[in-house]
Amino acid sequence: MNDRIREILSWYASENPGIRTNLARMLNHGRLGGTGKMVILPVDQGFEHGPARSFAPNPAAYDPRYHFQLAIEAGCNAYAAPLGFLEAGVADYCGDIPLILKCNNHDTLHDEKDPLSAVTAGVSDALRLGCVAIGFTIYPGSAESATMYEQLRDLTEEAKSAGLAVVVWSYPRGSGLSKEGETAIDVVAYAAQIAAQLGADVIKVKLPGAKVELPEAQKVYQKYEIPISTLADRVHHVVQSSFAGRRIVIFSGGVSVADEQFFTEVRAIRDGGGFGSIIGRNSFQRKKPDALKFLDTVMGIYEGSIQ
Amino acid sequence: MNDRIREILSWYASENPGIRTNLARMLNHGRLGGTGKMVILPVDQGFEHGPARSFAPNPAAYDPRYHFQLAIEAGCNAYAAPLGFLEAGVADYCGDIPLILKCNNHDTLHDEKDPLSAVTAGVSDALRLGCVAIGFTIYPGSAESATMYEQLRDLTEEAKSAGLAVVVWSYPRGSGLSKEGETAIDVVAYAAQIAAQLGADVIKVKLPGAKVELPEAQKVYQKYEIPISTLADRVHHVVQSSFAGRRIVIFSGGVSVADEQFFTEVRAIRDGGGFGSIIGRNSFQRKKPDALKFLDTVMGIYEGSIQ
Amino acid sequence: MNDRIREILSWYASENPGIRTNLARMLNHGRLGGTGKMVILPVDQGFEHGPARSFAPNPAAYDPRYHFQLAIEAGCNAYAAPLGFLEAGVADYCGDIPLILKCNNHDTLHDEKDPLSAVTAGVSDALRLGCVAIGFTIYPGSAESATMYEQLRDLTEEAKSAGLAVVVWSYPRGSGLSKEGETAIDVVAYAAQIAAQLGADVIKVKLPGAKVELPEAQKVYQKYEIPISTLADRVHHVVQSSFAGRRIVIFSGGVSVADEQFFTEVRAIRDGGGFGSIIGRNSFQRKKPDALKFLDTVMGIYEGSIQ
Amino acid sequence: MNDRIREILSWYASENPGIRTNLARMLNHGRLGGTGKMVILPVDQGFEHGPARSFAPNPAAYDPRYHFQLAIEAGCNAYAAPLGFLEAGVADYCGDIPLILKCNNHDTLHDEKDPLSAVTAGVSDALRLGCVAIGFTIYPGSAESATMYEQLRDLTEEAKSAGLAVVVWSYPRGSGLSKEGETAIDVVAYAAQIAAQLGADVIKVKLPGAKVELPEAQKVYQKYEIPISTLADRVHHVVQSSFAGRRIVIFSGGVSVADEQFFTEVRAIRDGGGFGSIIGRNSFQRKKPDALKFLDTVMGIYEGSIQ
Amino acid sequence: MNDRIREILSWYASENPGIRTNLARMLNHGRLGGTGKMVILPVDQGFEHGPARSFAPNPAAYDPRYHFQLAIEAGCNAYAAPLGFLEAGVADYCGDIPLILKCNNHDTLHDEKDPLSAVTAGVSDALRLGCVAIGFTIYPGSAESATMYEQLRDLTEEAKSAGLAVVVWSYPRGSGLSKEGETAIDVVAYAAQIAAQLGADVIKVKLPGAKVELPEAQKVYQKYEIPISTLADRVHHVVQSSFAGRRIVIFSGGVSVADEQFFTEVRAIRDGGGFGSIIGRNSFQRKKPDALKFLDTVMGIYEGSIQ
Repeated sequence: MNDRIREILSWYASENPGIRTNLARMLNHGRLGGTGKMVILPVDQGFEHGPARSFAPNPAAYDPRYHFQLAIEAGCNAYAAPLGFLEAGVADYCGDIPLILKCNNHDTLHDEKDPLSAVTAGVSDALRLGCVAIGFTIYPGSAESATMYEQLRDLTEEAKSAGLAVVVWSYPRGSGLSKEGETAIDVVAYAAQIAAQLGADVIKVKLPGAKVELPEAQKVYQKYEIPISTLADRVHHVVQSSFAGRRIVIFSGGVSVADEQFFTEVRAIRDGGGFGSIIGRNSFQRKKPDALKFLDTVMGIYEGSIQ
Repeated sequence: MNDRIREILSWYASENPGIRTNLARMLNHGRLGGTGKMVILPVDQGFEHGPARSFAPNPAAYDPRYHFQLAIEAGCNAYAAPLGFLEAGVADYCGDIPLILKCNNHDTLHDEKDPLSAVTAGVSDALRLGCVAIGFTIYPGSAESATMYEQLRDLTEEAKSAGLAVVVWSYPRGSGLSKEGETAIDVVAYAAQIAAQLGADVIKVKLPGAKVELPEAQKVYQKYEIPISTLADRVHHVVQSSFAGRRIVIFSGGVSVADEQFFTEVRAIRDGGGFGSIIGRNSFQRKKPDALKFLDTVMGIYEGSIQ
Repeated sequence: MNDRIREILSWYASENPGIRTNLARMLNHGRLGGTGKMVILPVDQGFEHGPARSFAPNPAAYDPRYHFQLAIEAGCNAYAAPLGFLEAGVADYCGDIPLILKCNNHDTLHDEKDPLSAVTAGVSDALRLGCVAIGFTIYPGSAESATMYEQLRDLTEEAKSAGLAVVVWSYPRGSGLSKEGETAIDVVAYAAQIAAQLGADVIKVKLPGAKVELPEAQKVYQKYEIPISTLADRVHHVVQSSFAGRRIVIFSGGVSVADEQFFTEVRAIRDGGGFGSIIGRNSFQRKKPDALKFLDTVMGIYEGSIQ
Repeated sequence: MNDRIREILSWYASENPGIRTNLARMLNHGRLGGTGKMVILPVDQGFEHGPARSFAPNPAAYDPRYHFQLAIEAGCNAYAAPLGFLEAGVADYCGDIPLILKCNNHDTLHDEKDPLSAVTAGVSDALRLGCVAIGFTIYPGSAESATMYEQLRDLTEEAKSAGLAVVVWSYPRGSGLSKEGETAIDVVAYAAQIAAQLGADVIKVKLPGAKVELPEAQKVYQKYEIPISTLADRVHHVVQSSFAGRRIVIFSGGVSVADEQFFTEVRAIRDGGGFGSIIGRNSFQRKKPDALKFLDTVMGIYEGSIQ
Repeated sequence: MNDRIREILSWYASENPGIRTNLARMLNHGRLGGTGKMVILPVDQGFEHGPARSFAPNPAAYDPRYHFQLAIEAGCNAYAAPLGFLEAGVADYCGDIPLILKCNNHDTLHDEKDPLSAVTAGVSDALRLGCVAIGFTIYPGSAESATMYEQLRDLTEEAKSAGLAVVVWSYPRGSGLSKEGETAIDVVAYAAQIAAQLGADVIKVKLPGAKVELPEAQKVYQKYEIPISTLADRVHHVVQSSFAGRRIVIFSGGVSVADEQFFTEVRAIRDGGGFGSIIGRNSFQRKKPDALKFLDTVMGIYEGSIQ
């Protein structure tokens, strides 16, 4: 373990060595291994959006083995997916890539204003499949948020005692927020803080916009002149809100944008002190050679070989 | 075990050998044993629709032993039923036919827009009755879907650790969908994907229609020109949506249609790469000689002796 | 055990010998012992309707010992009551009459359209009180029916593993049904089927009326010309709907009617192949000598000594 | 329940009604039902002495069903046997005779001075087989006696909470005693007391001889001139030692003696206030007609029809 | 299921249908399927005697897959082995042959006069590996026998409630017996009886010799002139001692003998009413073609095609 990884792990000194070992497995794996940066491939869109919306752009991706291959060839730090996708592919790739079992999921056949994902997998599954971490989504702002926090708390207790790391997708959503507010800087920073307070080892949030949603927050952001004008500023504020950078926080790109814009965002994450990206649709919805090239650029930016 | 069965079981390489043994028991049993195709007799209509609607067309079917006999004589791969029907007949047919215990059920004395079946049996019942699998129905699209997914998840965890296979009936239904949308191709494919992601070993869906229900999906089906004009095309798309055909997906016929039309549908399942049929009312609601002849034709189509 | 009892027990060949022993204890007890017919005394009206409505017509019946005495003197096959009534009387009558512990109850101090009984006793109570069976009421047609089915399923699993038989009162009721529909022939037959599918060893339903409630069912009853014009016809149909008569199904009389009409109904149960009666208010709401004479006639009809 | 049974059950007023019900089932069953006397058929010799020594004298007795038939035809109060013998026969005789599951057993292929039986069955077995009681052997005088008392204590706690009666075979044996001392009157009385103190509901001891084994006891028997010269005296003293006769104590005959001597012993048990006999080898080691005649005489003596 | 299998299963009418299903799976599998006879391949010698002593005569047998292949090609009814051998081979043969997990084992690196095998696997292993039964060895005659009986009792309770059959190897051995006494007819018959009383569904004993070991038994064998002069006589006596033939009892050949002598012994098992053979070293310690020819003759004798 190099000094940077040693430093990162020192933030988790109260976690048991099993959790730190599993964090180290992710941090030391793949092309960015040892840099303290991470690029993770998540593929839960089959469940969340349906198969055709997810995989028709690149039909090879219907096959659960495809995503293991993509993550391995691209040199990602980890691959995250729901139970079925891991079960149907892992046997061919045991030990080839750190795995995160996505333990709750939501589909869009029934739409609610205040969504509550179903708990679809658990710690015993993660252990028998050889995962390094469980993943869990919370929707701060939903009327159902307390239920989700409690489901996460139960899983976290069980996962941590088994030495598994906990990765939390913290996505503000629900009747308490405007649509634009879901990515408002104060809301994203708040969501990161909630995940950290719930005991997340790794936090995933969306890239924040410049809006400040909550009136009480607006006063504070103005009074203390918190810098949020550039994306790097905002990334920095989110990192700061994740226990002064002592919890790993990574950012998702959301919907497709032009590649150049995406790379600009990656540079902002890097410059703002973010720990990396979690890139789903931008990876697996293009042909594999194209995806590898795309991810090569992203990782190049993080490692500094590309500006 | 022949090469085709070996290939199918290879898709389940991360499942324990008990589950693979029970899948093999179904795949190798009966007239279609070893072909990789399956015809399963399900009889839960007594619970779901009431006794007269189910059994008056063929009163011999009131007797729980009748269905064991029918499944055995027809050479079905398995027989699926709720707790009571299995308990009241199994002692006379121990080991004669693979059994699937249907673990949740719903009756129609109280009708809801968003139905939630009751969990009416469990893994200990399946073991003491000598079953090879548990069966469970989910209604994607129901406001209660998360509850059903979680009930299934609990049963699945317990069943798989005991070496039992998991068969999921995935039937879109509820306030999130139009009536026609329940069998829309995008919705059926989505339902198959959800079942697969939840860890189903065998997935049962209804034959899909040509409609595309969800606006977001319509764009994708058009943009990528996904072939859905023939029934075989649609079956193929559902199979693809079940992890690129790496999960067994079988189709139910639903309400009675003329026999020729039914056989045409079976040909479409075969040509689209489906793994077989689950045939309830079309089997047990006619006199046994007629049912045996009917199933003989269906199996003949699957095995290729009938075009 | 005579041939008729041996035949009845053969229907329960997948149950453990403890359950079969307790069924035999009921079938072989009292005046109808060995005939395959049963008359059971149930007294849960104190809980369900209140004490005065239940016991004022015959104040001796306020005393919990009264009902043990009545059941024993009349030669009933079993006595069924809630926890308190059994606890307060059993010590004086240990072993004198098979006991059924009614495990859920509902009072009328709070009225709901969709009732849900409270689970008020359990398997450990039944064992410590020396009972042969647990009793449980379900209300098919209630919006709460799934909850009741699941409560019953949990109790059934525990009771059966301890060798106790399961007696289910299946009483259609709730917002899904009209008042007259609660005793419609299709609904009662459906209720019997549901209880049987849930694993009931003995099923208790109300005597069915000639109405057919559900539109889908009406078509079937007409098309197949199911005979339902006489009460004996309807009893026969309910017996048929209870797994072709391979589950014991007994009938309750409901509200008081003139004795002659009651005896006519008993003859119809006998002629339709029903297994007997469960008679509460018609027994304990008259003076004991009168009740004994009344039950003597009922049992005489069942055993054939009275036409 | 008649007055004598009511009186006997009154001694067990602190036991739950389930235990009292199961005691009543034994006390009220068979030819001696209601007399307060019991004749029980025990068949554990196949395990304890081997099959040929046990069954060669009457080869029909190799069949587990034989003993059920013998006990039923003779009108015994109960039949006691180890797990295998009950499992292999009970299904044909459910409810026909109260059953006692012998829960520990010892074989003679390895001989020890201080024997310790193996626990070979338990309360869940007794419940699923429909038994009224568990049976257990202790060897007071063995160096292993504390282990046996503790095994019994654990089983008793579980059995009583499930409403099962506890029958204890209390057979002094081991390095602490001379061979003759095993049936010395002070030792047998002491063994009965120990069983009663351990919570036994029914106690089985061997018929006591006139010897007084223990020096400390000899002084007392002489000082207080305890009458022990006749067998009836000694039976009376054992009954007295079983809580002044407030616990049921029955006597075993041990090895075969001439029938007349056996009947004389039965008369002594009756005259001394004993509650009956447990007769194994003297019953099943003769042809059935002879056994039935033999048991007819024994029961005649107990009921008073034979002097 | 044919009439003979139905008859055999009727002896297990108090077992749950899961157990009966798993017995049927063995009885209906392979070349002897449906005859009521069984030939089982057991391979625990690697553990019991060491690898070279076991596999050097036929080095292909070092490979765990070899024994699956041998059992399948020979048409055996089942294959029995310890945890490791099953784990290392089962994945390639799921569902191809009924499996028995040998749950205790003993090695000879430490020799005791009174051996106690270690419990090396359990019911959860048997379920996850897809086994039909657990296997367990007891050594009646060992000073440790009570411990083994209790270990078996615990496993049996768990296995039976999960629907697994219980196969007991009952091998007299220990300081209570002479070496020749281990196969004395009285001792082998006693060992079979003990296994049956402990609840074994299938009993495996060694072929008995003509010696009578125990003095008490000698008197009985002489007095009742029990026929034991021919091997068929002795087999008959062991079958009789296994609940009058109402438990399946099969015989092992032990050390290698000349083939003709072995076949003569098989004829004696057949003529004496034994249910078959369990053949280890005589099968796997020769080259496969030779083993197949050998087993072909054995099965021919059992099915009657060879005299």
